[in-house]
Amino acid sequence: MTEFIPPGTRFVALPDPFPMRRGDALHGARVAYETWGALNAARDNAVLILTGLSPDAHAAANESNPEPGWWEAMVGPGKPIDSDRWFVVCVNSLGSCKGSTGPASIDPATGAPYRLSFPELSIEDGAEAALCVLRELGIERLACVIGNSMGGMTALALLVRHPGIARSHINISGAARALPFSIAIRSLQREAIRLDPQWNGGDYDDDQYPESGMRMARKLGVITYRSALEWDGRFGRVRLDSDRADDEPFGLEFEVESYLEAHARRFVRRFDPNCYLYLSRSMDWFDVGDYCERRGGPSEGQTRAGLAKISVEKALAIGVHTDILFPLQQQQEIADGLRDGGADARFLPLESPQGHDAFLVDIARFGPAVRGFLDGLA
Amino acid sequence: MTEFIPPGTRFVALPDPFPMRRGDALHGARVAYETWGALNAARDNAVLILTGLSPDAHAAANESNPEPGWWEAMVGPGKPIDSDRWFVVCVNSLGSCKGSTGPASIDPATGAPYRLSFPELSIEDGAEAALCVLRELGIERLACVIGNSMGGMTALALLVRHPGIARSHINISGAARALPFSIAIRSLQREAIRLDPQWNGGDYDDDQYPESGMRMARKLGVITYRSALEWDGRFGRVRLDSDRADDEPFGLEFEVESYLEAHARRFVRRFDPNCYLYLSRSMDWFDVGDYCERRGGPSEGQTRAGLAKISVEKALAIGVHTDILFPLQQQQEIADGLRDGGADARFLPLESPQGHDAFLVDIARFGPAVRGFLDGLA
Repeated sequence: MTEFIPPGTRFVALPDPFPMRRGDALHGARVAYETWGALNAARDNAVLILTGLSPDAHAAANESNPEPGWWEAMVGPGKPIDSDRWFVVCVNSLGSCKGSTGPASIDPATGAPYRLSFPELSIEDGAEAALCVLRELGIERLACVIGNSMGGMTALALLVRHPGIARSHINISGAARALPFSIAIRSLQREAIRLDPQWNGGDYDDDQYPESGMRMARKLGVITYRSALEWDGRFGRVRLDSDRADDEPFGLEFEVESYLEAHARRFVRRFDPNCYLYLSRSMDWFDVGDYCERRGGPSEGQTRAGLAKISVEKALAIGVHTDILFPLQQQQEIADGLRDGGADARFLPLESPQGHDAFLVDIARFGPAVRGFLDGLA
Repeated sequence: MTEFIPPGTRFVALPDPFPMRRGDALHGARVAYETWGALNAARDNAVLILTGLSPDAHAAANESNPEPGWWEAMVGPGKPIDSDRWFVVCVNSLGSCKGSTGPASIDPATGAPYRLSFPELSIEDGAEAALCVLRELGIERLACVIGNSMGGMTALALLVRHPGIARSHINISGAARALPFSIAIRSLQREAIRLDPQWNGGDYDDDQYPESGMRMARKLGVITYRSALEWDGRFGRVRLDSDRADDEPFGLEFEVESYLEAHARRFVRRFDPNCYLYLSRSMDWFDVGDYCERRGGPSEGQTRAGLAKISVEKALAIGVHTDILFPLQQQQEIADGLRDGGADARFLPLESPQGHDAFLVDIARFGPAVRGFLDGLA
């Protein structure tokens, strides 16, 4: 049960109690965040970044931590999210293990980690926690809220629950609701962790750790975060040198297998398995259609009607052709729904070969798109 | 270690020894097959069906076994593969557990199942074994060889190694070589089985059985065999009734999860885990480009040149837009390569929403395509 908190992280204490959407409440909870640039006198130049499942709040180097961040090429002076103009805030998700309170944190009621006694976590709880950071920083209204992947869901939750909280919105490879293919993939990732005997109902430690379950979950993640197209060019059918190949029966043989293995090994000990389970499930549960009157079961129309309840002046929904986890039609749906709600909303499909993760690496395409949108805000 | 042999299955003894492509040989091995219709006097009306990873030889009801088969709608009198005209032969893959010799079969040298002492299995070994069935039945030349999925690979191996063995070829959702995305998925499926402590290096029995590893492998299979598009319409975000939902933490909640679970449970005890490992790996190894002179590493050009070594009069490569495991460009590649080799080869992309498995269920599209091709054979 380890938390992984970058140096220089700042914290906001959440109200005590902090009620959770599906019941129960947190006590003495906090949210981790970092900032770049400065809030102007009018307090109208704030841009909030909401992240995918695994990142911390350290999106890029700043004064408190000069190490490069996970979105280094995008955030900073002169960069697409330009901290010379914008006061940029990045929040670590509630439920994570990277500074914000989550299942790996100590429950003040017991003095021990929450583990599975952590209350059920919704995307909405993450949105409310992020809002507390904004209030603490004196931000009444954002110039823009940017959400990537899971953060795209969190942004929509924030917008639909708090009308007027943002003038504009960029949704990157996000979704207004979880679709069954993505639910199936995430369900299988969670099952891989739960099946690992070392998971032990959430009661593991660093010695008895569900390493193989986490490795399997991460590999499946990486497979669905990238794209077949990219891998064809990158790995083809290249085999490992004999000194790197695996001697075990049915062991590693192809470059692509070794790539997955390396990715998984890097991740496994740097993310808490219970936190992974909670955050993963919160995505399955999310549907912005919950915010309008039910007309029968959940449906496309329902989701779009939920999106239309959101009121922003301007929006951009960016997606990638090769994304199989949050497929392009989901960003189209977001743009269409926000337009129904009165926004000047644009859908921007990009030709990136890198799949769902393209926004992290294809800066050549994402940089200008994000910069262009932000520059266009009067 | 159980084999699953449908009643009425017929067998051909393989030559003893039966040399395997990657070394070693089988002794006392056999291949299971079934037939429909009758061989004509000219012996020129035979159609061979080569299957995907899991099916047995019982493609459809016949005199020896009136139970419906796995391709019931496609094979029989008056059906698209019309047994009134064609003598149809379906072969169970070598290495399988459904009648042909495989890792679950008894090694005559020890009297115990082969398990991991079974020699390394290649797609090519399956092709040679199928050829033995043809020879036994007195077939010198096929009217057509039809290969589905893995069977599409086996068909190409047969064609490239035995010029003149078939006048024509239908390749359905097949591939001329494994691509890294598919290798990654299969590698992860194999890892799920290998990580199950009950797999025990291949030394399990019905009581100590790698059930959870097999379930995980099968779920990942089903996810990649079908398509996101189909599931959107089929499951959406429908949840299980409270009496069917899982009480366990992070247990089943959505219809799509329950569907996967049911599929997996049906499969797990009906396919031998070691056979699964061997057949799965044989697909990763396959590249028809092996059959022409190497010009540097494996590449697209190499694979296409290998295809061009195949000589058939007429060919049809059918694929499906929603197939993520054997994506459409692989069937396009097959058609292009066979055309390079002089065939009148057509590429037929279908709009089936069911992904890789569409050929099993979308008979409305596949039926006419296959019937049309076979009817057109003079």
